[in-house]
Amino acid sequence: MSQGASDYIKNMIQAFKKLPGIGERSARRLVFHILSQNESYAANLADAIKNAKQNIRLCKNCFNLSGEELCPICKNPLRNHKLLCVVENPEIIYVFEKSGNYNGYYHVLHGLINPLEGITPADIRLKELVHRVENGEFEELILALNPNSNGEATSIYIKKLLSGKDINITALARGIPLGSDLEYVDKDTLSEALNSRKIYA
Amino acid sequence: MSQGASDYIKNMIQAFKKLPGIGERSARRLVFHILSQNESYAANLADAIKNAKQNIRLCKNCFNLSGEELCPICKNPLRNHKLLCVVENPEIIYVFEKSGNYNGYYHVLHGLINPLEGITPADIRLKELVHRVENGEFEELILALNPNSNGEATSIYIKKLLSGKDINITALARGIPLGSDLEYVDKDTLSEALNSRKIYA
Repeated sequence: MSQGASDYIKNMIQAFKKLPGIGERSARRLVFHILSQNESYAANLADAIKNAKQNIRLCKNCFNLSGEELCPICKNPLRNHKLLCVVENPEIIYVFEKSGNYNGYYHVLHGLINPLEGITPADIRLKELVHRVENGEFEELILALNPNSNGEATSIYIKKLLSGKDINITALARGIPLGSDLEYVDKDTLSEALNSRKIYA
Repeated sequence: MSQGASDYIKNMIQAFKKLPGIGERSARRLVFHILSQNESYAANLADAIKNAKQNIRLCKNCFNLSGEELCPICKNPLRNHKLLCVVENPEIIYVFEKSGNYNGYYHVLHGLINPLEGITPADIRLKELVHRVENGEFEELILALNPNSNGEATSIYIKKLLSGKDINITALARGIPLGSDLEYVDKDTLSEALNSRKIYA
């Protein structure tokens, strides 16, 4: 028996509802919007998803998303060989590269240590990180993990893991975000910014 | 030359950004989420979009989305032949049917009269509406258009268009939405609810 429109619509709403931050209403809105556009609009979206997923794998060196065995960053010999930035996921690399202010290399953990969800050090790319630190010429490892308890736990674990290795471990500065309103900054950030205050030059 | 991962990612972000309510950041979040899942997750989403768009057309009677020439609602002889509900788009039918409280037929205008955007009565399915009213056995036409200026303009236009025809024209009641907080209801809604107050029985 052929499917009716409502089955196709329900399938599509179900698929969209699996996306993060998309509930029943948003999914419905997106689905009916797509169905109201011409054929190429839907085809373009579907193809963009399929092509990306089919052609992208993980860089075997840094575990960034990559079209080939090695990602363009790892293949680029002109970047700063002394700097290694540790991030939770490939999206963070995308953000860093967009800011255009970092020219070292990256290492993607693909997760953070999270005892509550049973994510242990063995579940993320830490062994590979140690291997790269031991075999590379990195002088500084920058911890760029999210400022929450899992990010902290992972940062502390990495620091211990690399104790004794000849590498400086730094972390992103914490403080008041630029362009923010002090009235709306949470008290922990304010405390941290106060404790880390610097001479105003 | 083969595309790198970043081209695929950019294409995918562009495609998602075309969706209503999805900005650069949301698009990026969705894209990296999809790429972090297994192959079947992305394939499932892409296929749901393609299958729906390829298999759905407009019902030739009411212009609802349909898998066949006539939608299941128009084909159902057990619904109330006296009621015709006029809606802006197929999503509204979806919502009505979910509520399960209406068993008449529908007519989808596919838009509202909008002088500012140059959408005239000829651009929406009004001719077909008149045709259905003239040839059907409807006794009541329910205007279920959005409570904004375009919805009002379209409702007034339809009322004029059908003046002289033997059909009662009604509209959805306006008032305080159920479960809302009176503190947060806007003043126009409050005025309308006050003016339309009913004997509390």
